[in-house]
Amino acid sequence: MEATEKDILRGGQFLVKETKCEDVFTPEDFSEEQTMMKDAVMEFNEREIIANKPRFEAKDYALTEEVMRKAGELGFLGVAVPEAYDGLGMGFVSTVLTCDYISSGTGSFSTAFGAHTGIGTMPITLYGTEEQKQKYVPKLATGEWFGAYCLTEPGAGSDANSGKTTAELSADGKSYKINGQKMWISNAGFCSLMIVFARIENDKNITGFIVEYDKENPNGITLGEEEHKLGIRASSTRQVFFNDTVVPVENMLAGRGEGFKIAMNALNVGRIKLAAACLDSQRRILTTAVTYANERKQFKTPIADFGAIKTKLAEMAASAYAGESATYRAAKNIEDRIALRVASGNSHQEAELKGVEEYAIECSILKVAVSEDVQNCADEGIQIFGGMGFSEETPMEAAWRDARIARIYEGTNEINRMLTVGMLVKKAMKGHVDLLGPAQKVQEELMGIPSFDTPDYSELFSEEKEMIKKLKKAFLMVAGGAVQKYGQNLEDHQQLLIAAADILIEIYMAESAILRTEKNVKRTSEKEQSAQIAMAKLYLYHAVDIVEEKGKESIISFAEGDEQRMMLMGLKRFTKYANYPDIVDLRIEIAEKVKAENKYCF
Amino acid sequence: MEATEKDILRGGQFLVKETKCEDVFTPEDFSEEQTMMKDAVMEFNEREIIANKPRFEAKDYALTEEVMRKAGELGFLGVAVPEAYDGLGMGFVSTVLTCDYISSGTGSFSTAFGAHTGIGTMPITLYGTEEQKQKYVPKLATGEWFGAYCLTEPGAGSDANSGKTTAELSADGKSYKINGQKMWISNAGFCSLMIVFARIENDKNITGFIVEYDKENPNGITLGEEEHKLGIRASSTRQVFFNDTVVPVENMLAGRGEGFKIAMNALNVGRIKLAAACLDSQRRILTTAVTYANERKQFKTPIADFGAIKTKLAEMAASAYAGESATYRAAKNIEDRIALRVASGNSHQEAELKGVEEYAIECSILKVAVSEDVQNCADEGIQIFGGMGFSEETPMEAAWRDARIARIYEGTNEINRMLTVGMLVKKAMKGHVDLLGPAQKVQEELMGIPSFDTPDYSELFSEEKEMIKKLKKAFLMVAGGAVQKYGQNLEDHQQLLIAAADILIEIYMAESAILRTEKNVKRTSEKEQSAQIAMAKLYLYHAVDIVEEKGKESIISFAEGDEQRMMLMGLKRFTKYANYPDIVDLRIEIAEKVKAENKYCF
Ligand SMILES: Cc1cc2nc3c(=O)[nH]c(=O)nc-3n(C[C@H](O)[C@H](O)[C@H](O)COP(=O)(O)OP(=O)(O)OC[C@H]3O[C@@H](n4cnc5c(N)ncnc54)[C@H](O)[C@@H]3O)c2cc1C
Ligand SMILES: Cc1cc2nc3c(=O)[nH]c(=O)nc-3n(C[C@H](O)[C@H](O)[C@H](O)COP(=O)(O)OP(=O)(O)OC[C@H]3O[C@@H](n4cnc5c(N)ncnc54)[C@H](O)[C@@H]3O)c2cc1C
Repeated sequence: MEATEKDILRGGQFLVKETKCEDVFTPEDFSEEQTMMKDAVMEFNEREIIANKPRFEAKDYALTEEVMRKAGELGFLGVAVPEAYDGLGMGFVSTVLTCDYISSGTGSFSTAFGAHTGIGTMPITLYGTEEQKQKYVPKLATGEWFGAYCLTEPGAGSDANSGKTTAELSADGKSYKINGQKMWISNAGFCSLMIVFARIENDKNITGFIVEYDKENPNGITLGEEEHKLGIRASSTRQVFFNDTVVPVENMLAGRGEGFKIAMNALNVGRIKLAAACLDSQRRILTTAVTYANERKQFKTPIADFGAIKTKLAEMAASAYAGESATYRAAKNIEDRIALRVASGNSHQEAELKGVEEYAIECSILKVAVSEDVQNCADEGIQIFGGMGFSEETPMEAAWRDARIARIYEGTNEINRMLTVGMLVKKAMKGHVDLLGPAQKVQEELMGIPSFDTPDYSELFSEEKEMIKKLKKAFLMVAGGAVQKYGQNLEDHQQLLIAAADILIEIYMAESAILRTEKNVKRTSEKEQSAQIAMAKLYLYHAVDIVEEKGKESIISFAEGDEQRMMLMGLKRFTKYANYPDIVDLRIEIAEKVKAENKYCF
Repeated sequence: MEATEKDILRGGQFLVKETKCEDVFTPEDFSEEQTMMKDAVMEFNEREIIANKPRFEAKDYALTEEVMRKAGELGFLGVAVPEAYDGLGMGFVSTVLTCDYISSGTGSFSTAFGAHTGIGTMPITLYGTEEQKQKYVPKLATGEWFGAYCLTEPGAGSDANSGKTTAELSADGKSYKINGQKMWISNAGFCSLMIVFARIENDKNITGFIVEYDKENPNGITLGEEEHKLGIRASSTRQVFFNDTVVPVENMLAGRGEGFKIAMNALNVGRIKLAAACLDSQRRILTTAVTYANERKQFKTPIADFGAIKTKLAEMAASAYAGESATYRAAKNIEDRIALRVASGNSHQEAELKGVEEYAIECSILKVAVSEDVQNCADEGIQIFGGMGFSEETPMEAAWRDARIARIYEGTNEINRMLTVGMLVKKAMKGHVDLLGPAQKVQEELMGIPSFDTPDYSELFSEEKEMIKKLKKAFLMVAGGAVQKYGQNLEDHQQLLIAAADILIEIYMAESAILRTEKNVKRTSEKEQSAQIAMAKLYLYHAVDIVEEKGKESIISFAEGDEQRMMLMGLKRFTKYANYPDIVDLRIEIAEKVKAENKYCF
C-alpha cells in the first residue's frame, strides 16, 4: 500500500477532516511479517517474563537485565533500528507492536525496555552523526550495551529545560566536563551509555551528550541507591551524580543548545510507545479477570453472570479495543509519513524525526488515554477478584501498581493534556491545520436555524459518524470560544485547556474505534463484528457524555448571558442522539462475548 | 438537645422529606467532650502511629499489636462500650469521631482498630447475654484481649451465609465442636477471641459463636501464614482453621440460626465507621499535598499556582468536606435514635441495635462514597507529587494502597450499592418510608405542563436546595420506573440498581454538604463560609452531572418511545440549573483558601 501525501492526514487534522474507514490501519491489517513478530514477542513474554513474575516483584534487578539481554539476542531491542546498525529495520507499526506485546508481563521489564529502546536509543538514531551511530547504535540494538536517559533533576521535572547540570568545555577544546545530579534514571543500575542533558555556560537551552559509563572506570559518575517504589519494582531507578565527568566533544548530540528539542522529540516517540506498552496489559488483565469471574461462584452463580461484573468486563473490553484502534491508527500514519518523506528524498533519520513530530498531538492523546484506561482496567480487575484482588498471590495488584507510573513519566498526564491543545492551537496558527475555517462555520451554524429533518440513520454507524462530526464541532466551539476570549493568555487557563484536551482525546479514541469496526464489518459481516460494534457504540456513548460535561463546564466559565445560552444550546445539539443506544444491553452483549471466549478476544 | 420521634428522620427518609439545616449535626457542633476526645485521639495518632509509619510499612505486625494495646490503655477501644463493661460509654458521634481521627496514620492500624472495636466486639455488645458481656466485653474494651471476626471462607465471601464451617453439638449437649476454614481474618495473628460463624446441621442460616483463642492451648485452632497484601501491610490477615474446636454451648451468640443477622448488623455499624475511618486520611492527604504543592516549584512557579493543581486541591477538599458532612449527619441521627429508644424503654443494647439498623441505607451510602473519595484523593495526591508520589519515601503511595481495601471489605462496593437501593425498596414496601406517594406525584408532574416562572434564587442556596429536590424527583422517576417495569425481578437488573444507587449516593452527600454549610452560615457569615459555600456548590454540580448520566442510561434501558422521551425530558428538567455555577471559579476559590492555609482547613 503506497501512501501519497494526499491520503495521509496530517497530525491533528483528524479533527477537521473526515477519515474514511479504508484509510485507517487496524490490528486486523497486520501483515504476515507483523503477525510473526507479534507471535514471537508473545512467546518471549510468556517464557521469559510471565514465568518469572514473582522474581520481578521481589526486586530482582539482575533478572531485568538478564531478560533485556535475551531480548537483545532475539533482535527485539533493534526492531526500529536500521539494518545498517545491526537492527531489524522494521517499520513503525512493528516497533509499536513489539512494544505492545512485550510489555504486559511486568511494568519492570516494560520500563527497562521502553527506556532503552526509546529515550535511551532514539536520541542517537534521530540526532546522531554517522560516526555516533556507527559507534553506539549496534551495541544498543543488540543488547550488548544498555542505555539510560538522564534528563530529570531534583529541581527539574516537568520543567525539563531548567536543569542545573553543567557542561564545561576544556581549555584544549577537546572535551566537556559534566557536573550535576540527575534523578529517577531508569536503567541506571545496568546501563553502559547515558544520554545526558546539561547546560553549557548560560545557554537558554540544554545540550545533549552521549556519555559512556563503565563501572570499573566510572569517570566521575556515581549512582544512588535503588529507589523503592510503588510499582515496577525490578526496574532499576537511581540517582546519577556527575562529578567532572569528561566527555569528548564529538559526543555532543546535534548542536549546542539543541538538547531540549532532542529531549522533547524523544519523548514524542516515547509517548505512543508507552500507550502501546499499556495495551497488552489491558488485554491480559481482562483475560485474567474474566477467567476468574467465570470460575468464581457466589450465590451459586458464576460472578461473571452478575450485571455488576458484566458492566466491568464490557467497559474494560471497550476501552482496550478503543486504545488498540487509536494506537495502531496513529502508528501507521507515522509509518506512512516516514515512507513518504523517504520517497521524497529525506534521509531515514530525517524522515523518522519529522514523521513522529507530525503526530505529536496524537502521541500525547494516546499516552494520556491509554495510561488512564489501563489504570481503570487494573482497578476493576482487583474489584472482580474481591479480597483475592488485594493479595500479592494474584496478578491484579501488581498490574494496578505498575500502571500508576504511566500517568507520571514521559510527561505527566496534566502536561500532556495541555500539550495536545497547545500544539493544536500552534498548528492552526502556523496554518498547518485549518481550524479557523471550520470553527467559523460552527459559529455560523450556532446562529442559524437548526435543521429539523430526521436523517436516515439506518445504515451501520451512520448516526455514530454523524455524532463524531458533531463532537468535533463541539470541540471547535469550545476551544474556539476559549481562544477568542483569552487569546495569548489561554495558557493561564489550564482548567479550560484540560477540559478541551479531554474532549479532543475522546473524539480521537471514539472515532478510531468506529472506523476500525466499520472497516472490519466491510470485510466480514455485522454479525461477526457484533461485539465490536457494541464496543464502538459503548465507547462513543461515554465520549459524548464527557464532551457534554467538559464542554458545559468550559462554556459556563468563559461565556456569559446570551452567548452562554447559545453555546450551551449548541452543545446540547452537538451531543444529542436521535436514537439513544441502550448501553445496558450493549454491555451485556460485550460481556457475553468475552465470557464465552473466556478472554479478550478482539 | 433532646430529640423527639418527630424530629428525627427515619433511615432512607431523607429522600422524601426535606431536612432543615438546623436538624443536621455537623462537625462544627462537636461538644466540648467530643472536641477533647478528638484532640486526644489526634495526639495519639501523631505520637504512636504516624511517628512509626515506616515500621508499619515494613510489616511490623508486633507494632500494630503494641499500639492497639496502648489505645486500649487510653480507653480508645471502649469508647462505644457502656461503662458497666469498663468502656467510656460515650455516644455514637464520639465513637465515629474516634474512628475518624485514629485511622489516618496507616490503614494497618485502622483495620486492626476497626476489626476489633467493630465486628470483633459489637456482636457481643449487641447480641450477647449479660454473662457473655460480663465475661468478655471488659477485656475487649480495655485491650487486654483483642477480637477477630471469622465470617469469610474460601467459598463464602459476598455470599456470607453460604459458609461450610460446621458446629456440632456434643452428645452431652454441653458444647459445640467447630470444624472449618476461615480466610482473610483481620487480627487473627494476635487475637484472644474470635466471633466465629458456623452452620449447625442443615440450618438455612449460620450461627454465631464466641470462641476463645489461646496460643498455648489452641483447642484445634491453627493459623495460616500472614497474607502478603497490596496495602495495610502491618495488619495481621490470616486463614484460621478449626479442627474439632470445642466451644461451650453458653458461648453461642443470640439463638441458633441467628448468625447471619448478627453478621449483617455488625457490618452495618462497621460501614459508617469505615467511612469515618477514611475521612482523616483524606484530610491528611490533602494537607500533605498542598504543603508539597506550595513548596515545589516548576517553571519558576509553585505548582500550587497552576490551574491543573488547583483543580485537584479543590476537588479533594470538596469531597472530603461532603464526606464529613454526611458521616456526622448520619452518626448523630443514629445517636438520637438510640437515645429516643432508650427514653422509650428499650435496653441500651436493643436501642443501639435498632438505631443502627434503621440507618443501614445511609451506612452503605457512606461506605461506598467515602471509600471511593479517599481512593481518588490519594490518587490525585500521588499525581501532585509527580515522580515523588511514586516513591515509598513520600506518604502518598501507601495512602493509595491502603485505601484500596476499603472498597472491598465490609461488603464490596458493588454489594453495598445494590443494598442501598434494595433496602430502600423494602422499606417502601413495608411502609416505613413512603416512596410511592412522592413517586406518583413526580409521575403527575411529568405529564403536566412545566412551570415557566423564573423563581427568585437570590437567597443563599435557594437554587441549590431546589436542585436537591429535583434530584430526588429524578431518583423517584428512575427508580420508580425501574420498579414498575421489572417488579420483583429488579434484582436481576443490577446495572439499573447500581445506577440508581449512584444517584441516591450523590443526593445524600450533596444535600449533607449544603445543609452543613447553610447551618454554619447562619451562625457565622457568608463571608466566613465562602470556601465552604464553594465546596457545597462544586460537589452539587458534579452530583447533578452524575444524576443526569446515570438517569439517562437507566431510562434508555427500561423505557421506550414516548415514555422514554417524556422521562428524558423530565430528567433534563430535574437537572437543569437556572443559573449555572462557574465551577472553574469555584475551584479556584477553594484552592486559594487551601493554599493560603496550607492544609485542609474546614
Ligand atoms: C519510576 C520513574 C522512572 C523515571 N524514569 C526517568 C528516566 O529514565 N529519565 C528521566 O529523565 N526521568 C525519568 N523519570 C522522571 C519523570 O519523567 C518525572 O517524574 C516527570 O517528568 C514529572 O516530573 P517531577 O517528578 O519533577 O514532577 P513535577 O514536575 O514536580 O510535577 C508535580 C506536579 O505538578 C504538575 N505540574 C508541573 N508543571 C506544571 C505546569 N506547568 N502546569 C500544570 N501542572 C504542572 C505535574 O503535572 C504534577 O502533577 C522517572 C520517574 C519515575 C517516577
Ligand atoms: C485485607 C482483608 C481483610 C479482611 N478482613 C476480614 C475479617 O476480618 N473477617 C472476615 O470475615 N472477612 C474479612 N475479609 C473478607 C472480605 O469481607 C471479603 O473479601 C469480601 O466480603 C468480598 O468477598 P470475596 O473476597 O469472597 O469476593 P467475592 O464475593 O467472590 O466477590 C468477587 C466480586 O464479585 C462481586 N459479587 C459477588 N457477589 C455478587 C452479586 N451477588 N452481585 C454482584 N456482584 C457480586 C463482588 O462485588 C466482587 O466484585 C477481609 C478481606 C481482606 C482482603
